[in-house]
Amino acid sequence: MVATALLPELWTEILVPICAVVGILFSLFQWYVVSRVKLTTDLGASSSGGANNGKNGYGDYLIEEEECVNDQSVVAKCAEIQTAISEGATSFLFTEYKYVGVFMIFFAAVIFVFLGSVEGFSTENKACTYDTTRTCKPALATAAFSTIAFVLGAVTSVLSGFLGMKIATYANARTTLEARKGVGKAFIVAFRSGAVMGFLLAASGLLVLYITINVFKIYYGDDWEGLFEAITGYGLGGSSMALFGRVGGGIYTKAADVGADLVGKIERNIPEDDPRNPAVIADNVGDNVGDIAGMGSDLFGSYAEASCAALVVASISSFGINHDFTAMCYPLPISSMGILVCLITTLFATDFFEIKVVKEIEPALKNQLIISTIIMTVGIAIVSWVGLPSSFTIFNFGAQKVVKNWQLFLCVCVGLWAGLIIGFVTEYYTSNAYSPVQDVADSCRTGAATNVIFGLALGYKSVIIPISAIAISIFVSFSFAAMYGVAVAALGMLSTIATGLAIDAYGPISDNAGGIAEMAGMSHRIRERTDALDAAGNTTAAIGKGFAIGSAALVSLALFGAFVSRAGIHTVDVLTPKVIIGLLVGAMLPYWFSAMTMKSVGSAALKMVEEVRRQFNTIPGLMEGTAKPDYATCVKISTDASIKEMIPPGCLVMLTPLIVGFFFGVETLSGVLAGSLVSGVQIAISASNTGGAWDNAKKYIEAGVSEHAKSLGPKGSEPHKAAVIGDTIGDPLKDTSGPSLNILIKLMAVESLVFAPFFATHGGILFKYL
Amino acid sequence: MVATALLPELWTEILVPICAVVGILFSLFQWYVVSRVKLTTDLGASSSGGANNGKNGYGDYLIEEEECVNDQSVVAKCAEIQTAISEGATSFLFTEYKYVGVFMIFFAAVIFVFLGSVEGFSTENKACTYDTTRTCKPALATAAFSTIAFVLGAVTSVLSGFLGMKIATYANARTTLEARKGVGKAFIVAFRSGAVMGFLLAASGLLVLYITINVFKIYYGDDWEGLFEAITGYGLGGSSMALFGRVGGGIYTKAADVGADLVGKIERNIPEDDPRNPAVIADNVGDNVGDIAGMGSDLFGSYAEASCAALVVASISSFGINHDFTAMCYPLPISSMGILVCLITTLFATDFFEIKVVKEIEPALKNQLIISTIIMTVGIAIVSWVGLPSSFTIFNFGAQKVVKNWQLFLCVCVGLWAGLIIGFVTEYYTSNAYSPVQDVADSCRTGAATNVIFGLALGYKSVIIPISAIAISIFVSFSFAAMYGVAVAALGMLSTIATGLAIDAYGPISDNAGGIAEMAGMSHRIRERTDALDAAGNTTAAIGKGFAIGSAALVSLALFGAFVSRAGIHTVDVLTPKVIIGLLVGAMLPYWFSAMTMKSVGSAALKMVEEVRRQFNTIPGLMEGTAKPDYATCVKISTDASIKEMIPPGCLVMLTPLIVGFFFGVETLSGVLAGSLVSGVQIAISASNTGGAWDNAKKYIEAGVSEHAKSLGPKGSEPHKAAVIGDTIGDPLKDTSGPSLNILIKLMAVESLVFAPFFATHGGILFKYL
Repeated sequence: MVATALLPELWTEILVPICAVVGILFSLFQWYVVSRVKLTTDLGASSSGGANNGKNGYGDYLIEEEECVNDQSVVAKCAEIQTAISEGATSFLFTEYKYVGVFMIFFAAVIFVFLGSVEGFSTENKACTYDTTRTCKPALATAAFSTIAFVLGAVTSVLSGFLGMKIATYANARTTLEARKGVGKAFIVAFRSGAVMGFLLAASGLLVLYITINVFKIYYGDDWEGLFEAITGYGLGGSSMALFGRVGGGIYTKAADVGADLVGKIERNIPEDDPRNPAVIADNVGDNVGDIAGMGSDLFGSYAEASCAALVVASISSFGINHDFTAMCYPLPISSMGILVCLITTLFATDFFEIKVVKEIEPALKNQLIISTIIMTVGIAIVSWVGLPSSFTIFNFGAQKVVKNWQLFLCVCVGLWAGLIIGFVTEYYTSNAYSPVQDVADSCRTGAATNVIFGLALGYKSVIIPISAIAISIFVSFSFAAMYGVAVAALGMLSTIATGLAIDAYGPISDNAGGIAEMAGMSHRIRERTDALDAAGNTTAAIGKGFAIGSAALVSLALFGAFVSRAGIHTVDVLTPKVIIGLLVGAMLPYWFSAMTMKSVGSAALKMVEEVRRQFNTIPGLMEGTAKPDYATCVKISTDASIKEMIPPGCLVMLTPLIVGFFFGVETLSGVLAGSLVSGVQIAISASNTGGAWDNAKKYIEAGVSEHAKSLGPKGSEPHKAAVIGDTIGDPLKDTSGPSLNILIKLMAVESLVFAPFFATHGGILFKYL
Repeated sequence: MVATALLPELWTEILVPICAVVGILFSLFQWYVVSRVKLTTDLGASSSGGANNGKNGYGDYLIEEEECVNDQSVVAKCAEIQTAISEGATSFLFTEYKYVGVFMIFFAAVIFVFLGSVEGFSTENKACTYDTTRTCKPALATAAFSTIAFVLGAVTSVLSGFLGMKIATYANARTTLEARKGVGKAFIVAFRSGAVMGFLLAASGLLVLYITINVFKIYYGDDWEGLFEAITGYGLGGSSMALFGRVGGGIYTKAADVGADLVGKIERNIPEDDPRNPAVIADNVGDNVGDIAGMGSDLFGSYAEASCAALVVASISSFGINHDFTAMCYPLPISSMGILVCLITTLFATDFFEIKVVKEIEPALKNQLIISTIIMTVGIAIVSWVGLPSSFTIFNFGAQKVVKNWQLFLCVCVGLWAGLIIGFVTEYYTSNAYSPVQDVADSCRTGAATNVIFGLALGYKSVIIPISAIAISIFVSFSFAAMYGVAVAALGMLSTIATGLAIDAYGPISDNAGGIAEMAGMSHRIRERTDALDAAGNTTAAIGKGFAIGSAALVSLALFGAFVSRAGIHTVDVLTPKVIIGLLVGAMLPYWFSAMTMKSVGSAALKMVEEVRRQFNTIPGLMEGTAKPDYATCVKISTDASIKEMIPPGCLVMLTPLIVGFFFGVETLSGVLAGSLVSGVQIAISASNTGGAWDNAKKYIEAGVSEHAKSLGPKGSEPHKAAVIGDTIGDPLKDTSGPSLNILIKLMAVESLVFAPFFATHGGILFKYL
């Protein structure tokens, strides 16, 4: 009667950790390859000593288009700048970790107390919530294990982010140096470094989750309901670190960027990344902080949350009821397969093909997405075939729904392919190779105002297809397998996370490489090469953001479904006052949150402006380049401001579910979650795309490749000035307030999920006593 | 057993039309008073002939601070400009009416065919839908009567808009002339003219609705279910004209404004309203088209829809079941009382107090809102006491809910007072007397980019309190009396519509008056007075917009409730795939719609820019003031562009409910309506307030009243230039895309309501056949 998965439990227990370890080893291997590009001046001696350094030494490439490879002063300069960036980044992270530590201790206590109070801190076993014939562990145990899982999720996220940033700041100068030997070499270094981040994060996330489940199982034994309830803490931990990474990092990066630009480019008329600008190091640190650590923690959060949402629903479905471990853990083999697929995909970029000219960079990066999606489709089919029974039931808000394994395969696929579509639509709206951005650039003719109007309109318009793709994914996956389907669709979108992150991290590394080339005074030709790398990175950054938002939408819907299931309500009826006001207020929250983050960037940038102005005015010889600016103070300002300014938006996110759930109850909270989801995802997409389009409209005018672009330029023309204004406005939109909304919608949902038993027991006191 | 209202049916039948007629007569009286300000040059003779012209002649005031009152050339000039504006406005309206006519015929046919097809065009009576023991008229009859009601609603809206615009273009020059005699005189003329519009619209809307109900009743007799189903066509008619008024008018006004400013102010460096600017007449026409006709049709639509939503729910509640006509028509006495209250309120501004100095203007206008709200609270209490049984039942999605008359009183009041709160919060965020706008002005120091960032953040932040106020209104009214409560809350907010519209129409009249003063070459002092009138009008315009959005939100929720009731579904469960995708896509529609309207303004403005540039380049002596520009071509360009550009957004609004309802069915359509409501209202509020704040930040710098303001100015300084960019961006946001969203959310809801029987019968074919 009870069908089980083809793959025996033992194999699942073996294969999942093996894939995770393979991912980690692959990541270390990439790091090793990158590290073979030497950044010490004594290398010069051995390099001139002969071609004995192997493929990565300098000797081999003397026949290529090299430039000043023997100029030791350049290498020394690069190393020095890299050290400054790396130290700045580390200093930011360590400052942040102090606050993270305090937050974690405090919030871990909240989790423990709130969840422990569900049964009045009783240590007695009780009947399970869903399967009342079984006995489950006490709520106090779940409180304790949820707290542990929370800490584990947070620590994994922090460690991955930290290591990702280390490799990024380790690789940036190496990319610059390789650019002397040609664009292909530089590309590979930047891409490999991105891959380190991608694989490390995907694999360690999977491994820690796997170990946690197995360790918790020792205590929980038969009680899978409690086990996977406790595991949700892992998602909350990962996601709350993303709050620091995305919001704090977003404020940091844009405060530094806007501050540096406003004084440097506009007031002092010096180029971007000019070493005379005191904020230039902070700006380069910001690229790493925001785009590497921030994006990494965001996607890690999504991954952890999607897995937890799927697991918690599965535990009360036939998988959990029948104790079919392989099927129960379906999300884990999917992610394991993803690591293998991404590994193969990476080889296409690093080994199977070689980049020779600039115009091959962007296709190479985009092909990564296509290749990984195609191979992964096969991978999902295999996992679904061996990892699932041919027929099973899924918990559907009170009822059990019969699902076939091919239906679940389709659920995962629809998410995977929706991610690709969202990525390419994002590219269409933000790359200056297509008409939308060119139209925005053209509108600069009549000034900054029309540029802003057209840019905003572009962002608004760009939501249509992504939202439709998300809607179709939801419809298909929801229809087939209720909220479990949505959760695995989200996992499908995130299954190629290693490749996605590699591409994404590639961007800031290239950006930094360009900055280092400029600061080290390297030649125009090298700067051109790093610029080409950077331009491709801009497009992929936009794709990555679209991807992050799309997965956030699916994830938070899945979490919402899991929350509703655990809160014990079977309908969320818009036609009740409690839900409709929740919906309305929930739809308002992204606006409130965005207002806060935008204003935060503004305030932090103003502080930076003052400091940069002060240095220009008080340090004699700074403009002439005879004196060095005080980079460290600028780094400190950005660090302090970002930590301080993230408190109000952070409180909004963390407190809303608690307040709404406690005072208004689970129905209103459901409304709030649904409202913030459907409203937030639109603002996030439009803000990111508007910002990306402005950025690339400016670059389009600057590059002046086509006749049309030339008619708008050159740098310094009136249309270009208008484009610069648009770009500056877009900075906080695309790098702070837009992506931060991912955190808002996911974190509120996962927090509600974790606290669901508490709200179900003690929540809604306002209505109880009114 | 069956309690009925204290007020006998006969009295209701008598009192409602009397109040409507009183309103119309009061409106005509105001018109008469305004008309006594003469605008013909031969008046000069009689004026110098002695003080025989009574209180409104010139003679009385020679002792006051008069200026050039005897200068006949000024009067002639004013008359000439007024004629040009009036002709331009009329030409726009007549062009629009051609399209309106075609649209009406086409859409009337659609209504008839779709609704007629519900029972296959059968002419047989059938059992009623809700009370199956009764016999109801055939669907074909309802189709026919709905079509008639649709036409009546449309015609009433068109006529009110036309007459309102006539009086506005009639009063603008008169306001200018009165400004020569002092600011108080000018204020009264402008305010009286606004009152004409306000009372005419409120009273004729009520009267036509009253007559329609009574005439339809002759046919329907006992079948109130069918009767009030047919009446909903009235709301659809009113609202679809608002599409033309708000969207078409919004595009017109901003195309002209942005076009005039981009060439005149920025390229040619001539002042606003300079007669040498070829687009200046189009700009002044636009003020009337957008703010008078557009706002009027918007609020008329809200009023008609709120009444229809309340009536259709009442018809299937105990009022309708027991045939208690007085209680059934409760919305009508509320509106009648509103007219009387507003009449008294108006006297406070025109007769009880007199404006003597500039700073009294704004308080006088704001007091209008406070006074009308306070008196209306008493009025509602009276109507609720005599017009309702002490206890009754309201249809609540399948069940009947017991409601007391004092609860319904509270429902109406909560809407009324929420309107006031929204108005004042809007003022706080858009008036330069408070810190939010001053902060935005201050951010202009660092350029246009920070101005835009701070402005957007301000708009986002400004949604918090209005949304909370709307949420509380909904919660209270919904909890007390289900969707009927929400409908009457909307009616409560709209009960003081006559005063609201008077204040609102006052704005563009004053704006025009200033323009005419500038063009007629009147002295600096007179321009100062009209500027003072205009500045107060800007604030009240923002209040009016907040009001319009707030009521639109309540109205569309009420319509949504009525739609769901008529479509025969009892829950709209977010936890079903059909609803959640509707919600997500619905939340996307306001973005799509805004993208269209913003782009429309951009394209239309670019056409205007080209024409203005062409005239400056080809007409010799234009800049020197020796040759006259060709105003008519600019008016034509704005007219044609606005009609053409409103087609895509218009189609989006009109077709979405039809397509979704027909292909996806009523559940998905419910999701779409709820999604677009909760998302649209946020964008509408934030767009309006952002635009208003930028406008007033610019005015704050220009006026230079405080030390802070002076440090940012004067005109032409860098901060001022940044402020002008913000103002230009804000124009389409606050006058086109923002307010147009009201139409989106209301029109989709009322259209769904009207077509509900059709969707319930034939809708959702995609899911039926999949």
